[in-house]
Amino acid sequence: MGYLISFEGGEGSGKSTILKLLSESLKQKGYEVICTREPGGIDIAEQIRNVILDKKNVNMDAKTEALLYAAARRQHLVEKVIPQLERGSIVLCDRYIDSSLTYQGYARGLGMEDVFNINQFAIGKYMPDLTLYLDVSPKVGLSRIQKDDGREVNRLDLESLEFHEKVREGYHKLLEQYPKRIKQIDAERDIDMVFSDVLNVVINFINK
Amino acid sequence: MGYLISFEGGEGSGKSTILKLLSESLKQKGYEVICTREPGGIDIAEQIRNVILDKKNVNMDAKTEALLYAAARRQHLVEKVIPQLERGSIVLCDRYIDSSLTYQGYARGLGMEDVFNINQFAIGKYMPDLTLYLDVSPKVGLSRIQKDDGREVNRLDLESLEFHEKVREGYHKLLEQYPKRIKQIDAERDIDMVFSDVLNVVINFINK
Repeated sequence: MGYLISFEGGEGSGKSTILKLLSESLKQKGYEVICTREPGGIDIAEQIRNVILDKKNVNMDAKTEALLYAAARRQHLVEKVIPQLERGSIVLCDRYIDSSLTYQGYARGLGMEDVFNINQFAIGKYMPDLTLYLDVSPKVGLSRIQKDDGREVNRLDLESLEFHEKVREGYHKLLEQYPKRIKQIDAERDIDMVFSDVLNVVINFINK
Repeated sequence: MGYLISFEGGEGSGKSTILKLLSESLKQKGYEVICTREPGGIDIAEQIRNVILDKKNVNMDAKTEALLYAAARRQHLVEKVIPQLERGSIVLCDRYIDSSLTYQGYARGLGMEDVFNINQFAIGKYMPDLTLYLDVSPKVGLSRIQKDDGREVNRLDLESLEFHEKVREGYHKLLEQYPKRIKQIDAERDIDMVFSDVLNVVINFINK
């Protein structure tokens, strides 16, 4: 069995850059690695994602959405992640159960425990072996996004900032709940320092 | 608040005929009644249903399917059922949570309790006020379907019969678990007798 390592963090935490660097570095060290994110090109999961993201679906209830995310997660897990774990690969997953717990359970107010339960049904024994949480304040994170792809400032209105603060609060609650599984990385620093910490944590975990 | 009354039973139990008769009869007696079934014309629920039923999706995992049914149930409930209940209507629903419990939880082997939990998340306090279970042996039920719309005999192979026996077993377990909520009606008799019993149970419930 390989390892399922998930990466979590708010907007602009640098997850995707770190994942790319980590994946290359681990491959160079001779590990079998795959990098994925839901829905991950799985046709059924993509179809579910399309229902979630369809702009027409303004009436979508928050619980419907949470169930759909759990359904897409299940299918991505079964079709893509489990076969790789069974081959012995290290699976690096950009967002997983903790994103649902904090975004939907905490920030949207559905309740972390209830959202955990439907995700528990979806993932069974496949909790992440290790989770790296890239911690960044919403102000810094959102300003990075803005800088990166020139989005308009009005996207970062106050309500949105408040929402992202809640997301971060949710992650901090998860850190308390799962101190062994989730490792916090200070992601407000230079990318090199963040990456160096991430690599250390992952290598130590694999070799333990 | 109105009443949420669900109708359950295996294939060929006569649910749809009974529902039509009951709905007309209750309307004649002056009740506000709507008759529905998931996804019930709700656009989001229809989209979810399309993912479930898409013939291409042969790789769909049973848990993915169960989560999608729960998601479609949630949206149908929120958009169609709850507003009618709030108006004071009697909502007659052709299949609801018990179908998932017996078909997916019991007959497909996912576990009734686990399937209950995700459906509990989906429906919240909206358990049916009353459920009529139309009991018919799979042999009788399936032969009715065959007769009714001339389907081919090979659809009723042994494996299928065994599956439908399990569905019935699951319903019988639910009857033990919810003796107050679920009323069993012997649906192997003539439709007039079945309808007469159903009407009595419903009228007694409404007037109690």
